[in-house]
Amino acid sequence: MASSGDRQLGSLSQLAGLVASGTTRRSQLATATGLSRAAVAQRVDLLIDRGLLVETGTVATERGRPPLALRLSSDSSVVCAVDLGATHAAVALAELGGTVVAEATDDIDINDGPDAVLAALGGQMGRLLAAAGRPAEHVRAISIGLPGPVEASTGTVVRPPIMRGWDGYRVPGFFEGRYAAPVLVDNDVNMMALAEYAHRPDTAHLLYVKVGTGIGCGIVSGGVVHRGASGAAGDIGHIRVPGHDDVLCHCGNTGCVEAVASGAAIAARLREAGLPVEHAADVVRLVAAGDPLARRQVRLAAQRIGDVLASLVSFYNPDAIVLGGSIASLHDDLLADIRAAVYRRALPLATRTVAIETTVLGHRAGIEGARRLAVNHLLSPAGIARILN
Amino acid sequence: MASSGDRQLGSLSQLAGLVASGTTRRSQLATATGLSRAAVAQRVDLLIDRGLLVETGTVATERGRPPLALRLSSDSSVVCAVDLGATHAAVALAELGGTVVAEATDDIDINDGPDAVLAALGGQMGRLLAAAGRPAEHVRAISIGLPGPVEASTGTVVRPPIMRGWDGYRVPGFFEGRYAAPVLVDNDVNMMALAEYAHRPDTAHLLYVKVGTGIGCGIVSGGVVHRGASGAAGDIGHIRVPGHDDVLCHCGNTGCVEAVASGAAIAARLREAGLPVEHAADVVRLVAAGDPLARRQVRLAAQRIGDVLASLVSFYNPDAIVLGGSIASLHDDLLADIRAAVYRRALPLATRTVAIETTVLGHRAGIEGARRLAVNHLLSPAGIARILN
Repeated sequence: MASSGDRQLGSLSQLAGLVASGTTRRSQLATATGLSRAAVAQRVDLLIDRGLLVETGTVATERGRPPLALRLSSDSSVVCAVDLGATHAAVALAELGGTVVAEATDDIDINDGPDAVLAALGGQMGRLLAAAGRPAEHVRAISIGLPGPVEASTGTVVRPPIMRGWDGYRVPGFFEGRYAAPVLVDNDVNMMALAEYAHRPDTAHLLYVKVGTGIGCGIVSGGVVHRGASGAAGDIGHIRVPGHDDVLCHCGNTGCVEAVASGAAIAARLREAGLPVEHAADVVRLVAAGDPLARRQVRLAAQRIGDVLASLVSFYNPDAIVLGGSIASLHDDLLADIRAAVYRRALPLATRTVAIETTVLGHRAGIEGARRLAVNHLLSPAGIARILN
Repeated sequence: MASSGDRQLGSLSQLAGLVASGTTRRSQLATATGLSRAAVAQRVDLLIDRGLLVETGTVATERGRPPLALRLSSDSSVVCAVDLGATHAAVALAELGGTVVAEATDDIDINDGPDAVLAALGGQMGRLLAAAGRPAEHVRAISIGLPGPVEASTGTVVRPPIMRGWDGYRVPGFFEGRYAAPVLVDNDVNMMALAEYAHRPDTAHLLYVKVGTGIGCGIVSGGVVHRGASGAAGDIGHIRVPGHDDVLCHCGNTGCVEAVASGAAIAARLREAGLPVEHAADVVRLVAAGDPLARRQVRLAAQRIGDVLASLVSFYNPDAIVLGGSIASLHDDLLADIRAAVYRRALPLATRTVAIETTVLGHRAGIEGARRLAVNHLLSPAGIARILN
């Protein structure tokens, strides 16, 4: 059973969450939680003292003094949300309530390694804080999505396929001494999944499938990212698709869906056919220009991805699959074949409830998800424990 | 946000859960929850009044009167746990704390349809209640695991492959008018997964994979069964395995793992080879007798099952996979090949944390899981809401 300290943190977290979702008065908090008014007062005062909540509205009116209204602090607290891609670093400072106060995107090369990339990131954070007129102490959490597997509990990058020099690097270590805030690190698709989930209030179990240079998946159930036992959940790029055992994957196995159907794989097929294609972006350009061979390769890739998703629909029974990444911008050519494959293979009880769509947030999904993860963490028992210490 | 009624139910559920896990005194409950003593008293009295809790220990000692001790009621409340298989119906009456007060197992044929099977089940329940000296009103929840897909929210069987006559049947309807208790219905593998999970306190994400006549999977994360959007989660029997597109499955597709590697599939292969095999049980017998062809077919099946599980390990990143069902009793021949396939295909970050084992509960997993589900439900906000109405 939980200790009394855990319960206290749970109750502080519950109160902060109620304020975040619109409960503004102490009396309402007492009713909603069953806590005594004295217990609510003691806890709310603590949350105000530590800069998570503010209380406003002391202006007297004709009818007398209105009750004070609580809300999440915007004066002394921001979160820093970061979306690191292979070639970009997007950084946003946002108030706890969601308002972005400053943001910027820089070109980077993730293969320059953690020291160079994080130094550039740290520089950008400093410039944004200066532009927003905020001291570093206002940063209450830093949340970073990056394009590789992360052991989320420690923020350590583990065997990333495309991040040269990052294997075993513990990202939060870079920020120690620079910021007192907790540093949350996660695979970028988990961040994106969280953001897409928040935009679909009727969805309970969502898979976000990113089809870009590689193929990855974020899983959100009940508002929580499913990371699995070691933070590796959603690593679907190396699931085998039938009939391609002759295709070598960079992981050393053969027939992985990423080796067969990713943007990089499609680009390789088109290069073999003599087309001037280097990256996934070139594939997108060719398809947009109506090149039939490129469209054919995208549709074949969609069928292979659909085969994998059919297995995942049978196993996980999600109510939404959201496709993102550069290849997913090719809606028409991708969706039909993915849907057809899922409907053909997965069982009726699972397919009758699943919506298969493309992203609504586009390239903003990563940073929006990082922002949400930071605020969720700050208001969680663990986040509050840290603030109290 | 949750209404004040929801919060009240949440707080009653929390109190009942604390008592279930060993908090016995009102003063401890107040400390653990942050509720006022008056609020604890009001809620505990309600739970006693409705037969979920009892309070004991009024005997005075030399040192004076000891404080009253709370525990889950055993006097006026039992749950009825049922494990329905293709050919058996196991029924147990258990106190809320777990003690089984009466149980029995009958031979049935699930293909006799719901009216006949549930009538037999109802008769057995009546006999067990009589044997235990309990009136029907003592039954506070009925929990039934059955061998097919169930829409858990309504208890409706949906397109079951092996339960003739059950498609679309809403099981709780049978008990209306007979028992006032809620009737929980779920796929038997979900029940089994819940039971195995409870026996592994260090496990967070567990897959229970049943390899018997068919192949199915139950998923438990954080103590909760993952049922998915429509209760179909874990239906892995129709995931396609590479290289078997010539094998027709009863679902109408080809190459499903159930058509290739289930007990029924192995039996069919052995029959084709001229061996006298009808059911999965015959396969088990042959392997136990050391028949090399039977062992070979089991090992081939294990490789195919391992290929599917490798995909699921990459996607879900569980820390335990528990194998059950009749074929899983063949540990030595099954485990090695399944493990090898998972280690060969899934990524290191996911495989280094996953234990692949056979069941510890054996044939008791189904009924033990049903019992746990019933008690979990009774102590949940929804269960308590029902008891208050």
